[in-house]
Amino acid sequence: MPVGELLPVRDLQACCAPLTREPIGADNAESLARTLRALADPARLRLISMVASHEGDEACVCDLTEPLGLSQPTVSHHLRVLTDAGFLSRSKRGTWAYYRLVPGSLDGVAALLATV
Amino acid sequence: MPVGELLPVRDLQACCAPLTREPIGADNAESLARTLRALADPARLRLISMVASHEGDEACVCDLTEPLGLSQPTVSHHLRVLTDAGFLSRSKRGTWAYYRLVPGSLDGVAALLATV
Repeated sequence: MPVGELLPVRDLQACCAPLTREPIGADNAESLARTLRALADPARLRLISMVASHEGDEACVCDLTEPLGLSQPTVSHHLRVLTDAGFLSRSKRGTWAYYRLVPGSLDGVAALLATV
Repeated sequence: MPVGELLPVRDLQACCAPLTREPIGADNAESLARTLRALADPARLRLISMVASHEGDEACVCDLTEPLGLSQPTVSHHLRVLTDAGFLSRSKRGTWAYYRLVPGSLDGVAALLATV
């Protein structure tokens, strides 16, 4: 499924009130839907969960392919979707790219959904 | 997009630790992805937002079709997806069905995503 253009999560937080406070506008609904679609995939949820709970708070593709049981190109694709959406950051060191959860990114989405 | 079988949100909360605490299992990732797919649509986000912020905390299809600019069958389809996922409850009174946000449903998803 194409995720399309994504507002980075931090822009989404700046733009939008919590979903239940007032009717969300069409443009903001489109942006939030795209961000949620980046999360709404079992492999991507497992990846973000594995990266966030990994020793040292970061993980490389080499740590992720075997437990997921997916090919490296498939894992790399999912990691790119999560990076483009602003959930993961990527830093290249030597042969491997290492991924970390962007602080506040999941919390930003949670804050838009929460009613309290 | 078919949403498939959904765990009601309350079962999801009972089953799953927050996403970043430990690697989420394959079955739980599948369930959470399905629940997020029910939300990850601009029309459904607008609907849930309009219902939750509507006067009296409930709205009927008659309140929702015009502001959304979608046909009544399309709105009814999206409302059914949100109801099946456990985000909205539905009660029939006279000609119309009235929809309410299920208390705790969005907060349950937010709690699974939040890192704090």
